[in-house]
Amino acid sequence: MGRYVVGLDFGTLSGRAVVVDVATGAELGSAVHEYPNGVLTERLPDGGPLPPDWALQDPADHREVLWKAVPAAVGAAGIDPADVVGVGLDATSCTLLPTRADGTPLAQLTVLRERPHAWPKLWKHHAAQRQADRITALAAGRGESWLPRYGGRVSAEWQLAKTLQVLEEDPEVFHRAERWIETADWLVWQLCGRLTRNASAAGFKGLRQDGRYPTSDFLAALHPELPALLPKLDGPLLAPGSRAGGLTAQAARWTGLPEGTAVAVGGIDAHVTAAAAGAVEPGRMLAVLGTSTCLIMNADSCREVPGVCGVVEGGVTAGRWGYEAGQSGVGDIFAWYLDRALPAGYAEEARRRGVPVPALLDALAADQPVGGHGLLALDWHSGNRSVLMDHELSGVLVGLTLATRPEEIWRALLEATAFGARTVVEAFEAAGVRVDELTAAGGLTANRLLLRVYADVLRRPLHVVDTAHPAALGSAIQAAVAAGAYPDVATASAAMAAPRRETWYPDPTRAAAYDELYAEYRALHDHFGRGGSEVLHRLRALRRRA
Amino acid sequence: MGRYVVGLDFGTLSGRAVVVDVATGAELGSAVHEYPNGVLTERLPDGGPLPPDWALQDPADHREVLWKAVPAAVGAAGIDPADVVGVGLDATSCTLLPTRADGTPLAQLTVLRERPHAWPKLWKHHAAQRQADRITALAAGRGESWLPRYGGRVSAEWQLAKTLQVLEEDPEVFHRAERWIETADWLVWQLCGRLTRNASAAGFKGLRQDGRYPTSDFLAALHPELPALLPKLDGPLLAPGSRAGGLTAQAARWTGLPEGTAVAVGGIDAHVTAAAAGAVEPGRMLAVLGTSTCLIMNADSCREVPGVCGVVEGGVTAGRWGYEAGQSGVGDIFAWYLDRALPAGYAEEARRRGVPVPALLDALAADQPVGGHGLLALDWHSGNRSVLMDHELSGVLVGLTLATRPEEIWRALLEATAFGARTVVEAFEAAGVRVDELTAAGGLTANRLLLRVYADVLRRPLHVVDTAHPAALGSAIQAAVAAGAYPDVATASAAMAAPRRETWYPDPTRAAAYDELYAEYRALHDHFGRGGSEVLHRLRALRRRA
Repeated sequence: MGRYVVGLDFGTLSGRAVVVDVATGAELGSAVHEYPNGVLTERLPDGGPLPPDWALQDPADHREVLWKAVPAAVGAAGIDPADVVGVGLDATSCTLLPTRADGTPLAQLTVLRERPHAWPKLWKHHAAQRQADRITALAAGRGESWLPRYGGRVSAEWQLAKTLQVLEEDPEVFHRAERWIETADWLVWQLCGRLTRNASAAGFKGLRQDGRYPTSDFLAALHPELPALLPKLDGPLLAPGSRAGGLTAQAARWTGLPEGTAVAVGGIDAHVTAAAAGAVEPGRMLAVLGTSTCLIMNADSCREVPGVCGVVEGGVTAGRWGYEAGQSGVGDIFAWYLDRALPAGYAEEARRRGVPVPALLDALAADQPVGGHGLLALDWHSGNRSVLMDHELSGVLVGLTLATRPEEIWRALLEATAFGARTVVEAFEAAGVRVDELTAAGGLTANRLLLRVYADVLRRPLHVVDTAHPAALGSAIQAAVAAGAYPDVATASAAMAAPRRETWYPDPTRAAAYDELYAEYRALHDHFGRGGSEVLHRLRALRRRA
Repeated sequence: MGRYVVGLDFGTLSGRAVVVDVATGAELGSAVHEYPNGVLTERLPDGGPLPPDWALQDPADHREVLWKAVPAAVGAAGIDPADVVGVGLDATSCTLLPTRADGTPLAQLTVLRERPHAWPKLWKHHAAQRQADRITALAAGRGESWLPRYGGRVSAEWQLAKTLQVLEEDPEVFHRAERWIETADWLVWQLCGRLTRNASAAGFKGLRQDGRYPTSDFLAALHPELPALLPKLDGPLLAPGSRAGGLTAQAARWTGLPEGTAVAVGGIDAHVTAAAAGAVEPGRMLAVLGTSTCLIMNADSCREVPGVCGVVEGGVTAGRWGYEAGQSGVGDIFAWYLDRALPAGYAEEARRRGVPVPALLDALAADQPVGGHGLLALDWHSGNRSVLMDHELSGVLVGLTLATRPEEIWRALLEATAFGARTVVEAFEAAGVRVDELTAAGGLTANRLLLRVYADVLRRPLHVVDTAHPAALGSAIQAAVAAGAYPDVATASAAMAAPRRETWYPDPTRAAAYDELYAEYRALHDHFGRGGSEVLHRLRALRRRA
């Protein structure tokens, strides 16, 4: 008689469920449900226009995944739903919504649904940069002890910047929200009828450190009414793998799982993936390579790493200091290139060869010696949330000639993101946080040239996890712990983590050549990102004014 | 009874002939002949491979134009060839070939035709950069008085760099060449059987100043055998509009024109265009906007303009100081973009609308306010021969975001070339050479957004010449003078220059916004081009090594 858990992963464009064997971590069946409304960037579902840099989601889309994807995954696995002992879920973060005290999203209230600020703000909502800058400046000026834990800068993507934007631009929505809550926590609430909050998001995205959020006093200095936020963040804070409650009768009907099934506290997608990748021991860094890149690692001590997204005690697994760092644009830069800058002939040639376009580009670019294209790019098309933490930066491409071929630009973009990753890893090591091992997961691990470039640029072996649903598997591991099948996440990860598909080893010759290019990348990075030239900021300001 | 002249223009890919009315300058008929071998960049016609940065032409292709295009143009004009009183011609420059003393190109000798250095080197042959750098350094070190007349730098495109490359890499070809001669002068030689040299090319491309070429002593310091070049440059030097001779019986058979018809001395394409555009009076600048941009102007005095391509007494018309400046990449950057970076959908949409692709891009980009795309480019895809005079530079594009659209990149490239043009105009004015009027000619004048952007960026009215064959018309004007129909080129130009098709006036609001963007361009220009960062040179070196 097997026992199973269901892991759910709520991504940017879709939600997925996977059924996992508790004993082995084997993935037995899965299902994906695309969000009907996707990402709202230009207008609300009802048609109201949105300003630039906004990104919202529809909570109804998220809830739909529960009754579409879960039964489908269970069906695909061919198991008896009665054998499911736990459910866990993760979502993107900080993806935040305002609700009433009973959990009803304000976006679903007739009187508020035409108000953009009533809707969930997706992680990549970037319209709160001015608020983020003020928060950073105030915290720096007051010497707030939590600021260095975030690399010295508060991101526009985080809870405080987003809620301050709402308070300033639509105070009625701010005040009518009885709760501000992460999407993952809201979904757990939908499943077990109990409001809980996950320690990961509270720490990494909510600025909660040493047992508390930024003080009332600090919030009041930003806006006199902002201290009203604190009670709206109320609710028990649970460590990863904790049991939030049991499935309600209603949620049991939605999912087809037994009422009372253990529900784990919510998680952040990349953070729960560490368990799926067997990367919860200190020094084992996980790189989730997707639309953006998240770098996750545990360590035994708390160090202040410049530009790190955050270091949170128990933020990845209980009892360790969890580190998060990242790159705001990776796969989306490649997607932009394919959509906006790849000439017609390439799609035709890929069709002719029967391969995906990226595979064609990789094949055309792979044999060129390092530096042979003469190009260098900065991977800032979506800003920089790595060591610079600045969403107003933009992409740069230098070295173009009339002989430059598309596959060369493609490769330069792959390389730029590898240089971006190395910048982060070096910041860790410079701060005394050792990175002993590197494991990659995520959609971009399908790209073999990318993996080779990363291994060469980062000058260390790159392990690749063998799972199609790394975050959902991570949530399934949390579910197994919540269900009592394992004493803690580390033990569950040791038993259930995905196997390694392969390991890429750096080539010494290529790695040496990349050292030179990386030095150029760093010089360009510092020139455009650290005040050598403010041209990127001025161009952004001109664009806004225009 | 009308009287006619024939103007011939030998471009990069084709030669054209136009029949012109001597009294009015009206163009009565024309014909174009594409060079069968085009530009040789990868291999010789016989198949021998060429190194990177090479660009050769086939002299047989040039000669073919004489018997293909001239009779066709005369036929199209419907005139009696007996009424043709003069022939003039221009070519790209410095496009240089080695010949025997009788004018036979070395490339046509069986024993030498497999030797790349025996072939004519096209203006954009860029493989002599190291030679050019040494020539510049030596001239600067010795304080050669001619160096400041060339903006302080000798171009890799010019006669001395090209011939030094031959001497160093294939000394036998260098020595077996009894003459080194510009293609235009070689073609005049073919027509009238007499070797002459045009003062424009000798001055602008041959470093001839104050009545002499660089001294034997100077040449010997570059290479002990280089002084042997001087006798190979022998031949009478004639001013623009001078009669070189009369058509030989053989050339009369080729062209179908009367034996003895006056043949004008050769010219440089952009320089003869000044007469066609009515821009020979001091302060009237001609901008020939094509694959590259040439800026030509007469002035009353000799000033040293930093980065100018040259200032030559009598180099444009007799009795004035002629100035040449330019941009090495303009139309070819746009062509690169269309070929290598425009996504498939745009060609389809242009087909659907029944317009050329550039017109579609212009339409999509035209209404955006200045700065609305947030982009800035450096127009150095083909190096910079403007104020920096450095062919090792490369193109730069900054400000890319995930929202950047193709038409925005397109417009940023148009703007970059306008900023490049403004950089040159400002260098003139800073040196005390006034630019009172600006007239555009060339293929890119078909692009209306480009013309509007240039008027706005340059902050002055932009007149556009109404002729499809501006250089050939300029050569026809030289022919009219050579035939004695006018006393000088200025008088002939006043009677025969093309009318203005239109004038673009700057819009004050857009111009003010462009001032801001131009300031950013200049900052980027100086950073990457004047030693702020040597990254472009290092990338080029890496590429070469790879």
